[in-house]
Amino acid sequence: MKRIAIDMDDVIADATQKFCDMYEAEFGIRIAKHDFLGKEFHEVVPTEHQKFVYEYPFRKGFFQDLKVIPHAQEVMLRLSKKYEIFIVSAAMEFPLSLSEKYQWMSEHFPFISWHHIVFCGSKSIIKADYLIDDRIKNLKNFDGKAIVFTAPHNLKDEYESFTRVNSWVEIEKMFL
Amino acid sequence: MKRIAIDMDDVIADATQKFCDMYEAEFGIRIAKHDFLGKEFHEVVPTEHQKFVYEYPFRKGFFQDLKVIPHAQEVMLRLSKKYEIFIVSAAMEFPLSLSEKYQWMSEHFPFISWHHIVFCGSKSIIKADYLIDDRIKNLKNFDGKAIVFTAPHNLKDEYESFTRVNSWVEIEKMFL
Repeated sequence: MKRIAIDMDDVIADATQKFCDMYEAEFGIRIAKHDFLGKEFHEVVPTEHQKFVYEYPFRKGFFQDLKVIPHAQEVMLRLSKKYEIFIVSAAMEFPLSLSEKYQWMSEHFPFISWHHIVFCGSKSIIKADYLIDDRIKNLKNFDGKAIVFTAPHNLKDEYESFTRVNSWVEIEKMFL
Repeated sequence: MKRIAIDMDDVIADATQKFCDMYEAEFGIRIAKHDFLGKEFHEVVPTEHQKFVYEYPFRKGFFQDLKVIPHAQEVMLRLSKKYEIFIVSAAMEFPLSLSEKYQWMSEHFPFISWHHIVFCGSKSIIKADYLIDDRIKNLKNFDGKAIVFTAPHNLKDEYESFTRVNSWVEIEKMFL
């Protein structure tokens, strides 16, 4: 059985939307995803707001109530019949996220057992056939087939050496 | 640079001693490590106590104040100059352990960055040249060189196909 490693933030959990929502709640300015295509969220806020935005994912609760990326649940359930699925999140960067991500997985992906969840720092330690991720730093150190999952920040040339998928519907077409 | 993956419980953190201490505090019976050579801790307590012992690592605080296994700190610091060290713990089994283990690592092994810490369920996902671990379930699914670190429970025949080390002094001799 081939093994697919799947990232959490901006692949199955909508972290980018949470940045938009927290920023609007704090500063009263609505930034939509289509406002920062090809850029990081902090690049489109005023310089004096950047330090607050950097610190959002270190706040308690940031990862607790992220929305599920559309169709991730049903497609992953179908994938899990034919592939060995591992959820692999670089959670170690945000210490408070560890228990929140664990709870989030139990709530939204109860069919993925704790045996198949990995919280790491560097993903160079991961042994899998495929990695679906939105971050180049994770994809470029991966031995197997690296697949970039489209997120607002990753619409950049440097990602073009990887196969790109734009949605979970496209993941299903690729694998099933 | 070769990569060494190193388990936490009973390799760098003395979880077995914590079982002994909690059991004595709860039931007033002192069981020493040499009392259960080749057995799991729960196998040497009365049947009616087993359900409590099973549940110890699920209690808040269990992993917070574990003693460091002798010489793990100084030997690992020296190893880290010549090898890429990853700490790999099957922490996902005990959800409350995630933040406690993270804190414990910061306190006792500050020279190991969060980039090099992994909390997983199955260690079959780990890509490394060496794995030092006390559990056969982790060692037998590992592709690289598997090294069993002696703990009271693992003095059994089934471990004899692996290279055995009895202490961090022996690890230093093997690698440096």
